[in-house]
Amino acid sequence: MNLDLDLTGTTVLILGTAHSARRALRRCTHAGAVVRTAHTPADVDLTSLDDVRLVVAVDDCQGGWDEVLVRLRRTHLVVREDAAAPGGQVILVGGGPGQDELLTVAARKALADADVVLYDRLAPHENLAELTHGAELVDVGKRPGHHAITQRGIEELMVDRARAGETVVRLKGGDPYVFGRGSEEVAAAREAGIPVRVIPGITSAVSVPAAAGIPVTHREVSRLFTVVSGHVPLTASECEHLAGLGGTIVVLMGIGTMHQTLAGLRRAGMTTEMPVAVVERGYSMNQRTTCSTLGEATSAATLAACSNPAVLVIGEVVRLGHDWPRELTELAGASLGVSG
Amino acid sequence: MNLDLDLTGTTVLILGTAHSARRALRRCTHAGAVVRTAHTPADVDLTSLDDVRLVVAVDDCQGGWDEVLVRLRRTHLVVREDAAAPGGQVILVGGGPGQDELLTVAARKALADADVVLYDRLAPHENLAELTHGAELVDVGKRPGHHAITQRGIEELMVDRARAGETVVRLKGGDPYVFGRGSEEVAAAREAGIPVRVIPGITSAVSVPAAAGIPVTHREVSRLFTVVSGHVPLTASECEHLAGLGGTIVVLMGIGTMHQTLAGLRRAGMTTEMPVAVVERGYSMNQRTTCSTLGEATSAATLAACSNPAVLVIGEVVRLGHDWPRELTELAGASLGVSG
Repeated sequence: MNLDLDLTGTTVLILGTAHSARRALRRCTHAGAVVRTAHTPADVDLTSLDDVRLVVAVDDCQGGWDEVLVRLRRTHLVVREDAAAPGGQVILVGGGPGQDELLTVAARKALADADVVLYDRLAPHENLAELTHGAELVDVGKRPGHHAITQRGIEELMVDRARAGETVVRLKGGDPYVFGRGSEEVAAAREAGIPVRVIPGITSAVSVPAAAGIPVTHREVSRLFTVVSGHVPLTASECEHLAGLGGTIVVLMGIGTMHQTLAGLRRAGMTTEMPVAVVERGYSMNQRTTCSTLGEATSAATLAACSNPAVLVIGEVVRLGHDWPRELTELAGASLGVSG
Repeated sequence: MNLDLDLTGTTVLILGTAHSARRALRRCTHAGAVVRTAHTPADVDLTSLDDVRLVVAVDDCQGGWDEVLVRLRRTHLVVREDAAAPGGQVILVGGGPGQDELLTVAARKALADADVVLYDRLAPHENLAELTHGAELVDVGKRPGHHAITQRGIEELMVDRARAGETVVRLKGGDPYVFGRGSEEVAAAREAGIPVRVIPGITSAVSVPAAAGIPVTHREVSRLFTVVSGHVPLTASECEHLAGLGGTIVVLMGIGTMHQTLAGLRRAGMTTEMPVAVVERGYSMNQRTTCSTLGEATSAATLAACSNPAVLVIGEVVRLGHDWPRELTELAGASLGVSG
């Protein structure tokens, strides 16, 4: 059974070789436990365990522990942990839309096992120290006033640390393969001969609209959806085909190019009555949805001072969201509706 | 610190009122623990706790426990758990592509807290008994030889059970808002006045291609992707706009209409050399990728006897996948490549 234990001040005995038990040691120390270790079965003094509340047995497939464990189980709570990885590796982890609870179990496990985590501001990072149990945290994001680390620089750092035998987690916002250059980082690790795997994440393209109650598909309303990045404006041809396709359009980081996107879709023949939602800071305490129509959305977003990170949703499904104001459906020449 | 404890045969003392502690009781019993309970502080006999290895204190905000807990902490490992929900509710949970580790932390928590789970074959269900710690499991899926429960029937069951005060989890494959009628179920709960929330899931549209090493976006290869359901064939107009759009096309449950989809895209002018991958049973032990081109894919899929659940990926990104055979790039008139 999975339990969240407060180990502050609790004496814990960790069993296993120094190398394989390094992660368990880091986790227990980080959790505030008083740690005792035994690297071999001979190191365990069964006569002096009165203060030990929990035994962590690191499963490093070494012999000789079974007899000791049988005896310990009679008097103590014993938990097994896998050994820390023997060689270096890279794990690309999808961090989801920001909430720790929207990390996958695999992502949480990778973070808990990491020796070093490379993250940026789009990945959930507020509680990284807690989630990683004391791993080294490196901010590789571009921020005002800081020297930007180039994409090549991130890839080199990742490879160098893995070559040194460490488990390197590259934590990315959303899903590693939805924009964000994840597949370039996988290629870089592969070229360097470093074992690499990808843990998919909850993509903001679907989950941030959902946070505002907007389904990207709904029977008889939208049977397909297209996801684009707002970093570069859409071409006239892309606008024409997107307008003609008739499904939901989701634009990630959509504020910077919002004016061009909406103007392009209008020129391509999309009705000015088409509902548009701007969902800012999905799943944060100050999430906000600005609802409007294709004709009014640019001025509505300007008036509300919308900013990235934001997801733009264009399509009839917006009417199904929590925040779609009834009057926008009822009135022609609809204008602004904002809700927190 | 989060630990997975084997409680088989271990004596556990659960503190809290019968109603609020029902979940903790279900979990510990399911885990094989020998359970003792104390509904009020007066029920705790501090002189007879030698056999107790773990104390689970259910946080039901009732007074009087603090003093008992302080004393128990001196001699025992004490863990706090939230109280079970007081009133009925519905939680739509995205189950992801099938692997338990690709459930989110929020999804695992909802399953662990559920009184009843409504699931179908597209949701991960192999280990549901384990994940739910003894909740009632109801298969509402359509299967050969079984009476199908209608969509309306599922919604009624969901509402009825929540009205009876239970925490109802509706577990769906992938993400609840990517096809699968999740937003209809949310609407049904809302209309009935039942509290409802949605936990997004890892969508198969992005994660199943990733399982085959295929990123849905890659710089200078694909800057957008469209997700469609294969349950109904695409119209000629949809094919025309998708072919013109130039991004990645992902078809969920794509085998049944594969012939029409690919023929439609060819008629709309897409080159017969466009790479196509069929990824079957993503993240299962018998995952398989069949790589081909638009011109050859239908016969390749027939030859390989491809079947649903499968995700079809159409676009240049397929060349970046683990299983794209080099010879398909090098040779004209490329034919079949299958890998396990």
